Amino acid sequence: MNTLTHLDQQGAAAMVDISTKADSQRLARAGALVQTRPEVIRLIEQALLKKGDVLATARIAGIMAAKKTSDLIPLCHPLLLSKVSVDFQLDAAAGQIRIEACCQLSGSTGVEMEALTAASVAALTIYDMCKAVDKAMTISDIRLLEKTGGKSGHYKYQSAWEPSDA
Amino acid sequence: MNTLTHLDQQGAAAMVDISTKADSQRLARAGALVQTRPEVIRLIEQALLKKGDVLATARIAGIMAAKKTSDLIPLCHPLLLSKVSVDFQLDAAAGQIRIEACCQLSGSTGVEMEALTAASVAALTIYDMCKAVDKAMTISDIRLLEKTGGKSGHYKYQSAWEPSDA
Amino acid sequence: MNTLTHLDQQGAAAMVDISTKADSQRLARAGALVQTRPEVIRLIEQALLKKGDVLATARIAGIMAAKKTSDLIPLCHPLLLSKVSVDFQLDAAAGQIRIEACCQLSGSTGVEMEALTAASVAALTIYDMCKAVDKAMTISDIRLLEKTGGKSGHYKYQSAWEPSDA
Amino acid sequence: MNTLTHLDQQGAAAMVDISTKADSQRLARAGALVQTRPEVIRLIEQALLKKGDVLATARIAGIMAAKKTSDLIPLCHPLLLSKVSVDFQLDAAAGQIRIEACCQLSGSTGVEMEALTAASVAALTIYDMCKAVDKAMTISDIRLLEKTGGKSGHYKYQSAWEPSDA
Amino acid sequence: MNTLTHLDQQGAAAMVDISTKADSQRLARAGALVQTRPEVIRLIEQALLKKGDVLATARIAGIMAAKKTSDLIPLCHPLLLSKVSVDFQLDAAAGQIRIEACCQLSGSTGVEMEALTAASVAALTIYDMCKAVDKAMTISDIRLLEKTGGKSGHYKYQSAWEPSDA
Amino acid sequence: MNTLTHLDQQGAAAMVDISTKADSQRLARAGALVQTRPEVIRLIEQALLKKGDVLATARIAGIMAAKKTSDLIPLCHPLLLSKVSVDFQLDAAAGQIRIEACCQLSGSTGVEMEALTAASVAALTIYDMCKAVDKAMTISDIRLLEKTGGKSGHYKYQSAWEPSDA
Repeated sequence: MNTLTHLDQQGAAAMVDISTKADSQRLARAGALVQTRPEVIRLIEQALLKKGDVLATARIAGIMAAKKTSDLIPLCHPLLLSKVSVDFQLDAAAGQIRIEACCQLSGSTGVEMEALTAASVAALTIYDMCKAVDKAMTISDIRLLEKTGGKSGHYKYQSAWEPSDA
Repeated sequence: MNTLTHLDQQGAAAMVDISTKADSQRLARAGALVQTRPEVIRLIEQALLKKGDVLATARIAGIMAAKKTSDLIPLCHPLLLSKVSVDFQLDAAAGQIRIEACCQLSGSTGVEMEALTAASVAALTIYDMCKAVDKAMTISDIRLLEKTGGKSGHYKYQSAWEPSDA
Repeated sequence: MNTLTHLDQQGAAAMVDISTKADSQRLARAGALVQTRPEVIRLIEQALLKKGDVLATARIAGIMAAKKTSDLIPLCHPLLLSKVSVDFQLDAAAGQIRIEACCQLSGSTGVEMEALTAASVAALTIYDMCKAVDKAMTISDIRLLEKTGGKSGHYKYQSAWEPSDA
Repeated sequence: MNTLTHLDQQGAAAMVDISTKADSQRLARAGALVQTRPEVIRLIEQALLKKGDVLATARIAGIMAAKKTSDLIPLCHPLLLSKVSVDFQLDAAAGQIRIEACCQLSGSTGVEMEALTAASVAALTIYDMCKAVDKAMTISDIRLLEKTGGKSGHYKYQSAWEPSDA
Repeated sequence: MNTLTHLDQQGAAAMVDISTKADSQRLARAGALVQTRPEVIRLIEQALLKKGDVLATARIAGIMAAKKTSDLIPLCHPLLLSKVSVDFQLDAAAGQIRIEACCQLSGSTGVEMEALTAASVAALTIYDMCKAVDKAMTISDIRLLEKTGGKSGHYKYQSAWEPSDA
Repeated sequence: MNTLTHLDQQGAAAMVDISTKADSQRLARAGALVQTRPEVIRLIEQALLKKGDVLATARIAGIMAAKKTSDLIPLCHPLLLSKVSVDFQLDAAAGQIRIEACCQLSGSTGVEMEALTAASVAALTIYDMCKAVDKAMTISDIRLLEKTGGKSGHYKYQSAWEPSDA
């Protein structure tokens, strides 16, 4: 570990050349955590009983954001995602929503930034729709959970709530 | 606290009417935290000694993202930001970068989503530029730090690293 | 009626000057009709019983498209919508979905293009999500239903399914 | 016909996986109809005699909109269109403009949404440029006219004004 | 003249605060010059005799680009243009096309970047449509021609082809 | 040389079919020149000694603009750039900044418009950040410097400051 790949030898930012990288099936899963209060989770669950629009809105926002990743992150390559999904897990007692975004691509560059962007924007959308009832809401745990494909092979984050397969 | 403002009486999502809200000077500051390893912070600091492009790139990405907020967050109103800034504080020993984004507007709706989006996208950009050296990097502490203007008045988040004025 | 307002005296397209138009509260409602088969409407209704994502997705797409109107329609002025909503009415027997979009603005230009764009993109999104089960689906009746504010005053479309107030 | 392809087993919206679909040459043609009054068509024809900017503007708007389809329709995959064209047929006596958009792609997903989006936005642009002279203008007949390539093979819409080849 | 306004005291880029600037009627005109060969100008003129689509396309591209300025230029403020026009002057003997873009706004920040962006993108569009017949085409003379409104008052560029009023 | 490729036989603009063009490694370099006064260059150089944000901002703006090319230039095909870089050369005595953008792609269409757009937007960004100190700044010499790949083979612009290899 001794260089930052997105800087050239003079230290200038550049979108690095990926034309020699081989195409492979790539997948990335990323997570995020919204911490709010139990009663806010209950309001979201009540909305689910009606039209479910808080989570449906956040899901669509996350999916659309994945497609905008190269427009948001300056040195990301444009790419043609073959799949995007965003899922939610509510824990009313803890006042928490866990978000997991999954992106797939058959191509020459990884899709972790797309999955991370989808999870982040889904979390920001939940924040937007609930901020009137909880200004102290916090988004955390935005990280890569798993990654397959490409030269670096399989990566899986080890954590308490995402135990290793071994 | 008993309703989610972005859902109508049938529970359907809508961009709520702000036409009767008064214009006022509004400001929001939001934070985010990138947790990586000390040696990654040192690589970023070395880049600073050259052309400083990691943080300069993340700053520009954050500022541009603030301007895209209403395109990313489905129910956010478009608005004309009068100021955006993004700042960084590096702590090599802790392997941490603290990000603070500040947005201002003279208008009829708050700018907390713009500040949160700027901080989040600046964090994702740092992640992108450093992911080759640390896949386990985590973004956390995305939250509103302070908000002025509008009907709800002054709000300030109370935390260990952002002590109350009192 | 003898000129097209968006062409100058030489016939060249231009975004016309609105700087002398007065601000007023403006509202526009626009409609669209998706014609499909009764069994497709029933599939959408069954989805509603689960997570309701067909109409929720179309609603979000319509609201976000309203905000992109000046990016899609070359000579539309950018503006700051103060409200957008999109609603649906399903008629299973007729195999029809009626869409109604409503936009509001306090400003110097009308919002009929925003309402029409919201209704059109909501209809296209329903088409996208149902095209695997009905390729012959047709979108029609995209029109302005009502418009208030501005120099031209109140306008209301007269039709069988939208009877005059008189 | 018993499922909506864009909902997963729990009914949640997702951008479905197309990574196993084979690449093929794909083409889609879509139509739309703008219904106005004969004198409006004559104004457009007079503009044609000068710089032709109404239809030229609508054509460019349609072509550019085809490229924005995956940004407008939430569950559409991004793709690399290899050709887009938009054509118009004026019928002054009937007060009608027929629009036909054609998109092509060598890829793993169909381009009907791109053709439909191009036709719709071209129609909305005509509406925008003529709305000062006819508020009651209506857009209808937005539908897929023909589709080739992909697993589902050749499809052609049967109608009065687009007779079958047989 | 001793500071660059878009850098803060530490030299970091920021979108500067304009909330205290007064609203005024603002106008900016910007120019650009496309240098090609006489026969290319003649091809464009022949196209004009048909449907005029080279210049019509470049005009629409310039107008739409003016509306995207704050999305392209990192530290530009978003604003609501009240007028945009783009005009062309062909000189076949010299093989030249002069472009002039004019933007207006009632607001608190100047519109010179919008006019310059419109002129530049119109020039790039002409380049794109003519590059098959002249690879050596050059775009030059992109500059502010005139500016009114705001604290700095009236500015007019002095040149051979744009003589002073005096 | 007798036709403009982006117009069909009736003279209408279209995004031409590239589906039969073969994929090849493609590269384009484009240049631009910002002419200002020596003291402005010195201010930029002083900024470089601090955080270097003028050129870093212009570089990021150019790279991001290259990715937006098909959204700006109406008849450009969307494509997946594999590399983008933007470099600057300052000449304080002459009051000049030379910009060179380089784009690469493995695909079926050239990338000269992407390189030209990157160079142009980088130049406009420098203009924006320096306009408070020099309103008469001029951008010129926007041209293709070199192009490889594709049917037309190698092209190199011959000029005083970019001498031929021969």
